Amino acid sequence: MIVVISERATDAEVETLIKGIEARGVSAREIVGEEKRVFGLVGDVASIDAEALMRNDAVENVIRVSEPYKLSGRHFHPIDSVVEIAGPGGAEPVRVGAGNFLVAAGPCSVESEEQVLKIAQDVKRSGAGMLRGGAFKPRSSPYSFQGLGLDGLELLKIASRKTGLPILTEIMSPEYLSDFERDVDVIQVGARNMQNFTLLREVGRLGKPVLLKRGPSSTIEEMLMAADYLLMAGKAQVILCERGIRTFETATRNTLDLSAVPVLKKRSHLPVMVDPSHGTGYWDLVEPMALAAAAAGADGLVIEVHDQPSCALCDGQQSITPMVFDALMRRIERVRAAIME
Amino acid sequence: MIVVISERATDAEVETLIKGIEARGVSAREIVGEEKRVFGLVGDVASIDAEALMRNDAVENVIRVSEPYKLSGRHFHPIDSVVEIAGPGGAEPVRVGAGNFLVAAGPCSVESEEQVLKIAQDVKRSGAGMLRGGAFKPRSSPYSFQGLGLDGLELLKIASRKTGLPILTEIMSPEYLSDFERDVDVIQVGARNMQNFTLLREVGRLGKPVLLKRGPSSTIEEMLMAADYLLMAGKAQVILCERGIRTFETATRNTLDLSAVPVLKKRSHLPVMVDPSHGTGYWDLVEPMALAAAAAGADGLVIEVHDQPSCALCDGQQSITPMVFDALMRRIERVRAAIME
Amino acid sequence: MIVVISERATDAEVETLIKGIEARGVSAREIVGEEKRVFGLVGDVASIDAEALMRNDAVENVIRVSEPYKLSGRHFHPIDSVVEIAGPGGAEPVRVGAGNFLVAAGPCSVESEEQVLKIAQDVKRSGAGMLRGGAFKPRSSPYSFQGLGLDGLELLKIASRKTGLPILTEIMSPEYLSDFERDVDVIQVGARNMQNFTLLREVGRLGKPVLLKRGPSSTIEEMLMAADYLLMAGKAQVILCERGIRTFETATRNTLDLSAVPVLKKRSHLPVMVDPSHGTGYWDLVEPMALAAAAAGADGLVIEVHDQPSCALCDGQQSITPMVFDALMRRIERVRAAIME
Amino acid sequence: MIVVISERATDAEVETLIKGIEARGVSAREIVGEEKRVFGLVGDVASIDAEALMRNDAVENVIRVSEPYKLSGRHFHPIDSVVEIAGPGGAEPVRVGAGNFLVAAGPCSVESEEQVLKIAQDVKRSGAGMLRGGAFKPRSSPYSFQGLGLDGLELLKIASRKTGLPILTEIMSPEYLSDFERDVDVIQVGARNMQNFTLLREVGRLGKPVLLKRGPSSTIEEMLMAADYLLMAGKAQVILCERGIRTFETATRNTLDLSAVPVLKKRSHLPVMVDPSHGTGYWDLVEPMALAAAAAGADGLVIEVHDQPSCALCDGQQSITPMVFDALMRRIERVRAAIME
Repeated sequence: MIVVISERATDAEVETLIKGIEARGVSAREIVGEEKRVFGLVGDVASIDAEALMRNDAVENVIRVSEPYKLSGRHFHPIDSVVEIAGPGGAEPVRVGAGNFLVAAGPCSVESEEQVLKIAQDVKRSGAGMLRGGAFKPRSSPYSFQGLGLDGLELLKIASRKTGLPILTEIMSPEYLSDFERDVDVIQVGARNMQNFTLLREVGRLGKPVLLKRGPSSTIEEMLMAADYLLMAGKAQVILCERGIRTFETATRNTLDLSAVPVLKKRSHLPVMVDPSHGTGYWDLVEPMALAAAAAGADGLVIEVHDQPSCALCDGQQSITPMVFDALMRRIERVRAAIME
Repeated sequence: MIVVISERATDAEVETLIKGIEARGVSAREIVGEEKRVFGLVGDVASIDAEALMRNDAVENVIRVSEPYKLSGRHFHPIDSVVEIAGPGGAEPVRVGAGNFLVAAGPCSVESEEQVLKIAQDVKRSGAGMLRGGAFKPRSSPYSFQGLGLDGLELLKIASRKTGLPILTEIMSPEYLSDFERDVDVIQVGARNMQNFTLLREVGRLGKPVLLKRGPSSTIEEMLMAADYLLMAGKAQVILCERGIRTFETATRNTLDLSAVPVLKKRSHLPVMVDPSHGTGYWDLVEPMALAAAAAGADGLVIEVHDQPSCALCDGQQSITPMVFDALMRRIERVRAAIME
Repeated sequence: MIVVISERATDAEVETLIKGIEARGVSAREIVGEEKRVFGLVGDVASIDAEALMRNDAVENVIRVSEPYKLSGRHFHPIDSVVEIAGPGGAEPVRVGAGNFLVAAGPCSVESEEQVLKIAQDVKRSGAGMLRGGAFKPRSSPYSFQGLGLDGLELLKIASRKTGLPILTEIMSPEYLSDFERDVDVIQVGARNMQNFTLLREVGRLGKPVLLKRGPSSTIEEMLMAADYLLMAGKAQVILCERGIRTFETATRNTLDLSAVPVLKKRSHLPVMVDPSHGTGYWDLVEPMALAAAAAGADGLVIEVHDQPSCALCDGQQSITPMVFDALMRRIERVRAAIME
Repeated sequence: MIVVISERATDAEVETLIKGIEARGVSAREIVGEEKRVFGLVGDVASIDAEALMRNDAVENVIRVSEPYKLSGRHFHPIDSVVEIAGPGGAEPVRVGAGNFLVAAGPCSVESEEQVLKIAQDVKRSGAGMLRGGAFKPRSSPYSFQGLGLDGLELLKIASRKTGLPILTEIMSPEYLSDFERDVDVIQVGARNMQNFTLLREVGRLGKPVLLKRGPSSTIEEMLMAADYLLMAGKAQVILCERGIRTFETATRNTLDLSAVPVLKKRSHLPVMVDPSHGTGYWDLVEPMALAAAAAGADGLVIEVHDQPSCALCDGQQSITPMVFDALMRRIERVRAAIME
């Protein structure tokens, strides 16, 4: 860690600062010759909070030489991780990461047994490896449909048992931890909860696969620190998921940041999936962005599929039909072959 | 609600769409003469999800004629709300809103009894009406200090009893709801939890004053919908708090959006406070931004005050000293007088 | 165009507003039954400035039913445009758009005859159809290297004549219009000049192919209006180029908005190229983002290629080497085949 | 300048890098003891392009110890600059900076002699020190009104002569440099041209006062580098102007970044004005934001004033009336007195 001293700082302030730093068992070595006073900190700098240090009045700038995340970083674990997901009953587990490509597909919201089962069968036939579906729905407005809750979870289980597909669904509250532990194969921590640190800790303790979605205003660095919250209990298997960030552009619901895929793959050993449905908000952008994600090196996709595209009000309007999904799956396969040759 | 039909939509698709809308008891009237097919929806449009509708393939655009929030809006409650905050023991309640200006001040993190008490006494002497202090700290990194927790709450209570100042502190988990209900005068829902809908609902049920901080990537509209989550149980008293949004600018920690103050005052009856400490991240920006917030019409301020500015690593580096705070309070008073004359 | 009246507006204000609108030969029809007063404007609404109207005190909201751009829009020209670029001497023209995929490659800055020629020969051998290179360089700092100017242009011409590749280079000032008209095959209007309306008009009058880069804070709609400035003289052939937008994320130099590709293809008939070099700022992100752009349906790529990757200070550090470029070109071809099958 | 070496860099790459740096007459000293290889660069580091260096494959990070701007910085000129503006004929010059507060007011667009003169007289009576008005208008759409051009400039001159107020108006093209040199007292470089480096250089050579508006996606650092372009000829007097940045928030036209005021005052000696009209886009936000800007320490304001608020389509809808302006001027004076006591 490098500390640049402000020109307004008095000698006494610098002395106090350096003493404070050295009290943490870290030594501070001045770099002679620079225009300004600059110190390199040597030792266990993990105990030093760079952001707090930067706000010290005597400090002009701080540079971290190491990343602020650990368990999710490539330094900690240089080889690509594979997350193995147990299926229902005696079904074969599915894998994601290190060359294993996984597509999770299904309706945005679970509506009825018939709907979920029909879509699950369709997407399985087309090659999806996991069933996604919302039971608990985070909604900006308290007046919008909030999902079927535990009843929705039951419907997902039925479709899972009948198709052999494992389930991916979002948890919104620690209240349902034991339900999710028992019934859900991959627990999704949604974008709005990416920095709900209490929830991260508790989900991490379950030791189940977790899909962590990037917050709409979260940096890649913050996402990896959030993954570290999940990994701290030493048990979780984490999949990262890019789903769009909030920018000034209004032509799309979010701006899908596909460069996050190679950046995450470089910095972290965790598998990286992409959600082009929430990432764009429009069904006709799902195919080009799904193909682009595959070409950029993603380990998998999360795609909303709905069988009633003309339904007026359901959230499935960023969804594609099973037929479009089927054609897309073939193209994805060809793109994956193209980049691996 | 106005619905503009896509030029690519077939007659059959439009018919299905309109039937779907009318199935909700809303009638759709075509506006004749427009270049495109445009429908005005008449009736109980609250049951229509504009965002979902916009993603319907036959729809090009949707315009909401009413706001998506209700309980927090001026339509619902045209007169400024006053939030009354009970003090410890027999202390006089303090008020915020409708001309009542309230300054909450105190350390970022609670560290020791001596520290909190000293600062509480200092800020009270300068005119603060509430003691703020962090017991549970949301931190991006799991390796940073996470606060003293319930022990920190105890220290705040001691300082509160000795000074008569009510307490403002942040809740991070439903786990501690009963502790906060019993011990905390104003419960803060932090920026990262602004869309933690489960927490909002549960805190709203307590019926205590709540300070709701704006999420770093939340629009003003989303903030008011989050306030509606708090208000739905019919009991909460809500204070809104602008604390900076995330932009591309890195010279400040966040970009303090002071225009949110008059926008919120226009749209909502709720009191609006501003946090210039987190909003800027640098202690020397706190004074100009605090004065600017008062001039823009804010109903109060949340300010970090710390007595050891030269401490190397504490989070208090965006804090001002009690002496600077004292001078600031006098200036704030003069600015408030200046704009009200 | 739909106009929603503010509830605070008096009848007199509404009357004045409607008269002002009808004075422009547009009729305003009230939509009866809505909760609020809503008017549909019928007639030549192109003469109405929606943004100005929205700021009228009596107006709460305005919805445009038509797009604000014309000449660049699909309504105006439903079929994909092809831009044909004349090569040097008797060389075959190259094409971009409507299935013609074009890669422009070359050094960020032109440095010497030997450098440009060497790189031009290398990229031609790998399949590039155009030589890109900076002669005039827009630099944030006045203390940075500003390019070789007209001397750089001469070096590009030599390389162009020797390889048969047409030249793409950036114009920064109307001062050099005649030089660019004479010597440059595709004139680039850079991101910082996307809304330099004087330059757009003058370049548009030349009637040469123009590559218009998206401004770092420009919406897709603004980009298409900027293209209309170029197209107004009735002569220009315009290629659009996505090159990253400015967001809060700092892991990349810009956030490459690949969803802009299908959105632009849907709204406009103009060819769309992508610049993954400036769009990411890091050479090791160029390959995955180039492949992703091709998969998303781009009509071409602009890629920085430099033969001295270990040079300490040249701008070519977001460049890839000719060898990496060669392998990339093969992969791009395979990805393009994969999505078109 | 501090350079952190990537862990993937080979010894040979580091050697090449260091040689490249030392070839510029800068010495690179390794900081021993750090976890990673870190070098401090000593000497004339101005010749080193930090951004290019950061993109070198062997480099993980670069920290600038000095600011990238010079002439506009406080290091170069520690005392507040005063910009003196000559008035028409023998009128007293007006001043801005170092305690001199200046308000420029007038119509967004110049429409007629009667309009400009009437408004100029009104704002002068209320205490404005300068007349602002648009003759050349930068418009996103080529179909919007582009201003009266040189005819508008003539009207401004008439109003200036009759009131004694100097003129502030925007230049859009080098074509009119001599007209502006002769007729305009303060030349405005608009937000969209903040990085039009050619225009900056040419305007800087005139040696007249310049008002430089911040680009909607420009950092404070970039703004000061743009000011350096103006100052390089050694003649210009520069006033900086905050006018809002582009963010995700749509409740306002831009997000007025008032914290830029104290940040600019700290880093630069140049006067800082604020434009709350363009900065918010709504006339009813002009007053609170103008007062807030004054409280934050701005040296002046640029405010749109229009006498026909009910005009349907003019750009003046973010304008306030002369009467509202008059009351605002009194409040601004009181706020300025309040913060200076």
